[in-house]
Amino acid sequence: MSFQELETILHPRSVAVVGASVNTFSFGYSYAHHLVEYGFKGPIYLVNPNYPEIVGLKTYPSVRDIPGPVDFAISCVNASQVTAMLEDLAEKNVKCVHLYTARFSETGRQDAAELEQTVLTLARRKGIRLIGPNCMGVYYPQMGLSFGFNLPKDSGPAGMISQSGGGASGFVHLASLRGIRFSKVISYGNGLDLTECDYLDYFIQDRETKIVLLYVEGVKDGRRFFDTLSRAARVKPVIVMKGGRGQAGSRMTFSHTASLAGSFPVWEALVKQAGAVSAGDFDELIDLTVAFRFLPQVTGKRVGVIGGGGGPSVIAAEECEESGLEVIPIPQDMRKELKDRGVNIWDWISNPVDLSIVAGSGVTDIDMLHLMGKHPAFDILMANVNEWVFMTLASDERFLGMKNQVKNHISLRDTYPKPFVVIFGERGVITGEQDNWRWKVIAEAREELIGAGMATFPTFRRAAIAVRKVQEYFAGLD
Amino acid sequence: MSFQELETILHPRSVAVVGASVNTFSFGYSYAHHLVEYGFKGPIYLVNPNYPEIVGLKTYPSVRDIPGPVDFAISCVNASQVTAMLEDLAEKNVKCVHLYTARFSETGRQDAAELEQTVLTLARRKGIRLIGPNCMGVYYPQMGLSFGFNLPKDSGPAGMISQSGGGASGFVHLASLRGIRFSKVISYGNGLDLTECDYLDYFIQDRETKIVLLYVEGVKDGRRFFDTLSRAARVKPVIVMKGGRGQAGSRMTFSHTASLAGSFPVWEALVKQAGAVSAGDFDELIDLTVAFRFLPQVTGKRVGVIGGGGGPSVIAAEECEESGLEVIPIPQDMRKELKDRGVNIWDWISNPVDLSIVAGSGVTDIDMLHLMGKHPAFDILMANVNEWVFMTLASDERFLGMKNQVKNHISLRDTYPKPFVVIFGERGVITGEQDNWRWKVIAEAREELIGAGMATFPTFRRAAIAVRKVQEYFAGLD
Repeated sequence: MSFQELETILHPRSVAVVGASVNTFSFGYSYAHHLVEYGFKGPIYLVNPNYPEIVGLKTYPSVRDIPGPVDFAISCVNASQVTAMLEDLAEKNVKCVHLYTARFSETGRQDAAELEQTVLTLARRKGIRLIGPNCMGVYYPQMGLSFGFNLPKDSGPAGMISQSGGGASGFVHLASLRGIRFSKVISYGNGLDLTECDYLDYFIQDRETKIVLLYVEGVKDGRRFFDTLSRAARVKPVIVMKGGRGQAGSRMTFSHTASLAGSFPVWEALVKQAGAVSAGDFDELIDLTVAFRFLPQVTGKRVGVIGGGGGPSVIAAEECEESGLEVIPIPQDMRKELKDRGVNIWDWISNPVDLSIVAGSGVTDIDMLHLMGKHPAFDILMANVNEWVFMTLASDERFLGMKNQVKNHISLRDTYPKPFVVIFGERGVITGEQDNWRWKVIAEAREELIGAGMATFPTFRRAAIAVRKVQEYFAGLD
Repeated sequence: MSFQELETILHPRSVAVVGASVNTFSFGYSYAHHLVEYGFKGPIYLVNPNYPEIVGLKTYPSVRDIPGPVDFAISCVNASQVTAMLEDLAEKNVKCVHLYTARFSETGRQDAAELEQTVLTLARRKGIRLIGPNCMGVYYPQMGLSFGFNLPKDSGPAGMISQSGGGASGFVHLASLRGIRFSKVISYGNGLDLTECDYLDYFIQDRETKIVLLYVEGVKDGRRFFDTLSRAARVKPVIVMKGGRGQAGSRMTFSHTASLAGSFPVWEALVKQAGAVSAGDFDELIDLTVAFRFLPQVTGKRVGVIGGGGGPSVIAAEECEESGLEVIPIPQDMRKELKDRGVNIWDWISNPVDLSIVAGSGVTDIDMLHLMGKHPAFDILMANVNEWVFMTLASDERFLGMKNQVKNHISLRDTYPKPFVVIFGERGVITGEQDNWRWKVIAEAREELIGAGMATFPTFRRAAIAVRKVQEYFAGLD
């Protein structure tokens, strides 16, 4: 399918929700709600014979009663009602139907699989393209399309294609907390008509999308997929996560999206050959997106680290090293500069820089970052905010120093063109902490970093793995 | 050193803080504050010539001015003042000094290393035992001893020995959020006098301690360490985390605690041979503690999983499998039972159980857990609460169902003797969410599970790795 065709589908002038509902438990309610809440600009037609209005909008007893033209329809009806609905929608010249509707081939039942084929044949005959079935459909905040509550209303450069719907909406939510915003996210479930290749082809050309994320459980046409992936990866970073790697996972992909998962080692080799980046789980998919989104090109592996306290510095060093980064010793000329400046720990200080050593020494962690920032021996800088230790500290002064540190980190990032990564712990806040000033200061500091477009990661391990993969990606481009 | 000797040290009748301070930035303030705040029962003597009182307590100009006997002293004075302080404390017949004081051999400087040896020689001559130097000392909530703000005041069965102080206090804080409480935590830094072996020997006999955690960067006497570790691991689970695995990490351990780290593969083999359990990082150390603390004996590897939605179920399956657990297919007799009960997805449902499949099917996820709970094919049960997806859902009814689920999980755990693990996501809450009812419901649900003593983990991957290691531990005991 051409770029222009999908571009038109994603810019409908009007949307119908067939099977809209007053039951707030249902997705027939949710999709109607989102069109209003996310500000869809054109006419919204809700179809339900049992209620005169839903989410404050007039409803129509049937598709045929809709007064104006319909470009895009969201189907929340049961599987058994889909063919009749398609006949009706064809009368309205609808271009595309998103089948939230499930219980087709993924049930493993012959009658359901046959019904799915009937739906496809009918849609093809009527010239209707299908997203799904068995999926969440489209999140395109700029158009006023959403498939989840609590997702950002503003947009950004990440585009996502996801076979899983729940995975996609949870992912968008979690990634948004790390500063990622999305151009478009398409959850496509069983991929009956439009497949991951159609969406990938679209994202290659889509100017709103600078980074492409893909969660896929299985592909129907391997050759076309790797051809499309290779073309995409030449144009922009593509990060691929495969669901269904082992035996149990593969078995599971069938009942989820009727996908046959195939051999994972073969898959990984092909993703690499295509020039794309492979992510092992959703956390890594977010980490890689953060790294591509917020870091400049990563040109080397030698990292200078502010490790926090002593133990955390030891751990930071080995987690960087185990990911293939090089935690180099402090260069001699840098030591000499420290000595010339009368720094009393010039011979003791290491990389990582241990905060309990620099305290009161005549240099601060920020001074050390500046020295490493301007020194050519370091390709990457990393600093640990160490929030878990901060939670056990006492005084306001000591603690509020974290806010200054954050400002300094942002200004440091703006001073040197090197990739600069900040490690900022995450942990489940408990309800009793809502009024704990420590928690608030920590949350505000993290939000300031993220709001300023810093690349932040919850642990050194996760940061190091992502940065190393991004470095390999850029090395592969040469 | 005998159990009784350290037991006496850890039950001082009076404590002195030498170098107590009004500066809330300093640890001279913190240690004084904690003795009051955590309710130390005996006399507290604060030594500082410059202030008449600190944290509401009278201060003494020097150690010699303290009116009563002193059993335990916390040293916050500079390294250069330590020998004079020890002479004074010897006059008071003090049994043990915790040297928070740092800047000894870990600086790598000869004069500092020599001073450290002088301190040791003097302490030995005076019959004073030393904890540290360069460490946080003792957290023993039942005695009113603490080394951090915001740490629990109640105690529990985990005992910890940590060479890193910041690591220890942050660790206690994070572990407490997962329901872990501690008997005693001893941070011992450079281990000049008492070493990890003395503390291990103590924990073997300590009745308050059922699980021993050890963070160590290097040991001075390898033979004694592995002998002590072997004896300890025969008596209770011992979980060991090694700091300083690679090149950069090893280099770093020296400037942190003057430890020579040694070869990591050799280390790991010896830990295993000793019958102890090895943890790769602080997160895994917490996970293993949760598993040993809250699960019954893990007798097999076959796991039944409630995976949440479709994508998360696929991921759950493979993360369990990659950790060496077996995600077995639904047994035929269980399918038959479902069919006999008229469940309309009897032939479709898989392990993991996909919540989007069971919805409206005639069985709930809880029914499926009961079936797996009573079926002998399953050794372990796991259920995913999937909080990240819940954050994007709409209605109160749907969402509040989570609270019922939590109650059901607890009752299910109490019904079947099998290990039952709950996966409950964690993520950084942002300040704007403080009043979001979704966040509150999620936090309350997690706290209810943890409060009920359930084994909860933030991801399937982390749960599966911990459970598998615990299963291997119990298999090794046979």
